[in-house]
Amino acid sequence: MEGKRVQESAVIMNELVLPNDTNTFGNLMGGRLMYWMDIAAGIAAIKHCNSPCMTASVDNLSFKNPIKLGNIVRIEAKVTRAFNTSMEIHLKVWGEDSIHQYTYESNEAYFTFVALDPNGKPRAVAPVIAESEEEKKQYAGAMRRRQLRLILAGKMKPNDASELKALFVKDDQ
Amino acid sequence: MEGKRVQESAVIMNELVLPNDTNTFGNLMGGRLMYWMDIAAGIAAIKHCNSPCMTASVDNLSFKNPIKLGNIVRIEAKVTRAFNTSMEIHLKVWGEDSIHQYTYESNEAYFTFVALDPNGKPRAVAPVIAESEEEKKQYAGAMRRRQLRLILAGKMKPNDASELKALFVKDDQ
Amino acid sequence: MEGKRVQESAVIMNELVLPNDTNTFGNLMGGRLMYWMDIAAGIAAIKHCNSPCMTASVDNLSFKNPIKLGNIVRIEAKVTRAFNTSMEIHLKVWGEDSIHQYTYESNEAYFTFVALDPNGKPRAVAPVIAESEEEKKQYAGAMRRRQLRLILAGKMKPNDASELKALFVKDDQ
Amino acid sequence: MEGKRVQESAVIMNELVLPNDTNTFGNLMGGRLMYWMDIAAGIAAIKHCNSPCMTASVDNLSFKNPIKLGNIVRIEAKVTRAFNTSMEIHLKVWGEDSIHQYTYESNEAYFTFVALDPNGKPRAVAPVIAESEEEKKQYAGAMRRRQLRLILAGKMKPNDASELKALFVKDDQ
Amino acid sequence: MEGKRVQESAVIMNELVLPNDTNTFGNLMGGRLMYWMDIAAGIAAIKHCNSPCMTASVDNLSFKNPIKLGNIVRIEAKVTRAFNTSMEIHLKVWGEDSIHQYTYESNEAYFTFVALDPNGKPRAVAPVIAESEEEKKQYAGAMRRRQLRLILAGKMKPNDASELKALFVKDDQ
Amino acid sequence: MEGKRVQESAVIMNELVLPNDTNTFGNLMGGRLMYWMDIAAGIAAIKHCNSPCMTASVDNLSFKNPIKLGNIVRIEAKVTRAFNTSMEIHLKVWGEDSIHQYTYESNEAYFTFVALDPNGKPRAVAPVIAESEEEKKQYAGAMRRRQLRLILAGKMKPNDASELKALFVKDDQ
Repeated sequence: MEGKRVQESAVIMNELVLPNDTNTFGNLMGGRLMYWMDIAAGIAAIKHCNSPCMTASVDNLSFKNPIKLGNIVRIEAKVTRAFNTSMEIHLKVWGEDSIHQYTYESNEAYFTFVALDPNGKPRAVAPVIAESEEEKKQYAGAMRRRQLRLILAGKMKPNDASELKALFVKDDQ
Repeated sequence: MEGKRVQESAVIMNELVLPNDTNTFGNLMGGRLMYWMDIAAGIAAIKHCNSPCMTASVDNLSFKNPIKLGNIVRIEAKVTRAFNTSMEIHLKVWGEDSIHQYTYESNEAYFTFVALDPNGKPRAVAPVIAESEEEKKQYAGAMRRRQLRLILAGKMKPNDASELKALFVKDDQ
Repeated sequence: MEGKRVQESAVIMNELVLPNDTNTFGNLMGGRLMYWMDIAAGIAAIKHCNSPCMTASVDNLSFKNPIKLGNIVRIEAKVTRAFNTSMEIHLKVWGEDSIHQYTYESNEAYFTFVALDPNGKPRAVAPVIAESEEEKKQYAGAMRRRQLRLILAGKMKPNDASELKALFVKDDQ
Repeated sequence: MEGKRVQESAVIMNELVLPNDTNTFGNLMGGRLMYWMDIAAGIAAIKHCNSPCMTASVDNLSFKNPIKLGNIVRIEAKVTRAFNTSMEIHLKVWGEDSIHQYTYESNEAYFTFVALDPNGKPRAVAPVIAESEEEKKQYAGAMRRRQLRLILAGKMKPNDASELKALFVKDDQ
Repeated sequence: MEGKRVQESAVIMNELVLPNDTNTFGNLMGGRLMYWMDIAAGIAAIKHCNSPCMTASVDNLSFKNPIKLGNIVRIEAKVTRAFNTSMEIHLKVWGEDSIHQYTYESNEAYFTFVALDPNGKPRAVAPVIAESEEEKKQYAGAMRRRQLRLILAGKMKPNDASELKALFVKDDQ
Repeated sequence: MEGKRVQESAVIMNELVLPNDTNTFGNLMGGRLMYWMDIAAGIAAIKHCNSPCMTASVDNLSFKNPIKLGNIVRIEAKVTRAFNTSMEIHLKVWGEDSIHQYTYESNEAYFTFVALDPNGKPRAVAPVIAESEEEKKQYAGAMRRRQLRLILAGKMKPNDASELKALFVKDDQ
């Protein structure tokens, strides 16, 4: 299967924070943001694999700054690496207060999607071609993040996660 | 501040999967489920801290079984432990096909919420009183999960995460 | 057909009142609450009859206390009795202001649902087994409520509603 | 306070049944229809009393024919009579399959709304002037429906409901 | 094909402006209004052609007065003329502040819909019978509006738009 | 007031067509697309003027190809020129069927927005600096489109629309 460049799956999404998206302080609710992030990640995934696909997992998400009512939410998503039938998607999210011309980071996240054949079964996905420095760094880190995911889902023993273990053992010496 | 029992924050939520919640295979989209989970977690958090609160982070989420159109989504959420101004909430999610009388696990997750004072600043939260065996186990594990969260958010060095490191180092010997 | 216990159909639903659910006074609109009650009642009905089902009627509804923006709506629904192809569902609805730790009754209601076979035609429903005192009282009252429903829908003459008529005639003597 | 004619509050609403409004048989869900009916009734009420208002109660509702996906829902609402601070609104609902040029009754209902002053307290409402034969009939029947509502809400004893009791006692002789 | 009277397609729609429909000034957003106008126009079109149909174009829209949160939106739509497989629909939109008993014009618009056969291909539409003075005027003007539409869509040369050109040339002399 | 470059207001929006967005043929409804276009145009406008703003008008819209359920909608919006207190925004919309790797044009449109000061009154807007060939062409054409808008809104006489009239008169000789 021929590889596809990261840029072919890159997606930009801009949304406006409306009253129903906010809590009593007028801040965007986390669940509403995750809903948009899932759509953006799904569009990136489908652009890479050219088949329907499904959210398999979401890595740790940490919300840095609340996004206010009336502000713009900007989401950028792209596939970083493929693993057989799954793809890791990297997302960056910003809030933008255009009135005060102020842009701020909201969060950075990794979603994993599985590609599906017409019967809804997992199907093979084209490899990812990382070109820029940043894309190559994301590509390399994807293996370590995958090990953490498998450990956290109880599908891998910490001892087998060689890349990840190095992090702790190296620190230890 | 007086402690509150886990059961005081326990929340049950039942929802029906409607057409707009599904992808082209008729399966509930991950983002829509995370939206509901965030509402359920937020209700548990507000029941514990009796003040407005805000999603701070979401731990790794792994979706096991797709939930089908027309099925029931059942979410159970409860606060497991409090840390100064934040609370960890544990969620379990099931799909239920009542026609075929078949219930299946969808996922298990941990959300963290921050309690807010009337000015929107973080405020202290009552400690959690774990009573049952399962509640005590969740309470104990919360410290390790918090270390992982801080490391993944870049706010703690792996070497300082004593509880978490033990996992890797013990395996190593 | 074997009977099913009331508790097997019991459903709890918790929702958050968002801006779009409210009128200009920030109170939950009646129509939005009825929408949620219909979903809760439908889930209880489907849990009892294990087949698709459809709202047939809604008994008199009286809203006691408005539920405020940001408050929690708690709905409890369970099947009280079955009549051939239909089921009566009892609902209780509370508002909960977790900030002020104050819970208040919103309303109590009865919905009737019809069970459907795969062709969309009414199909027989298992009888209901009432166990607790309250369940038995609900079961007994269901016949009188059914007579009132039939009279109000023009399907029964007041004179034939023996249970209901007793109410007026007894008072009269 | 000067009276207002029934026609001044008459409201027509047309809606299209979309996928998310339907159950697995492609029929409009009862809760979604009640949501629209509540909006239509609220518009009629506000047109009569020229102040904000709030749903107080909904009389027995019986759904005769399911309305299909893609069909048109037609709702007609108008105030029938005023009682101090409340108004009774009559609604008629039809489904319309324009492809097959077929219109069918869905249901007929009575909602009660309370008028509110700027502090959210009940305020007096102008009396209703019934002109046509049908309006006069609705106006007369409103007293009997009100008695039934009060009895069902536990606010009136059956024996005091003179208009309503006549129904049963007359039949009895 | 037999003609149909304009009144057979006339549609009235009343909606309430809810928080999510508004911008930060509490005014109805243009896009939300166009969404409702498209539904109203679609219902008028389907009533005329008795087949599914699809928005083909929207003529210049100019919003005169903002409609406020809590106000009523009133839309009237009717088919003005048919052209082979398409229909022109005229819409008038008002805002209504019932508290202050004040009704104001929002805009006036023309939508064009295409009728579809069961395979989704354009199909012939019955001619329109204009009866009142206003209907006849709308019917006559439809030809000129159609020429402008075709020119703006690049499907007609200005020189061939005899009706439209007269407007400019007459003014010129 | 200092000018701003076109690129500073450029916005990209990607959305997924969900069941509720479609008609009975599974095609995106025109009104839903206009809702998204209005949000995209509004974001472009607010990025240019750094103040709240409001839809003033929408130029002729012609939908070329229906966008299917499950496809991606891609909208690109940017401010082309400013006129005192208003801005013209150009939008291009594509459908994208990622499964069949096929992208198709849906429509091209011009929206006009008015910038508002904190009291909701129109306020002056920075001029637009067109840089690329295409931006300069859009900038030049904006004057002619504005004349057409004013004529169609009844605010200018065809004879005064010198730029527009040239189109017809030139053809005429």
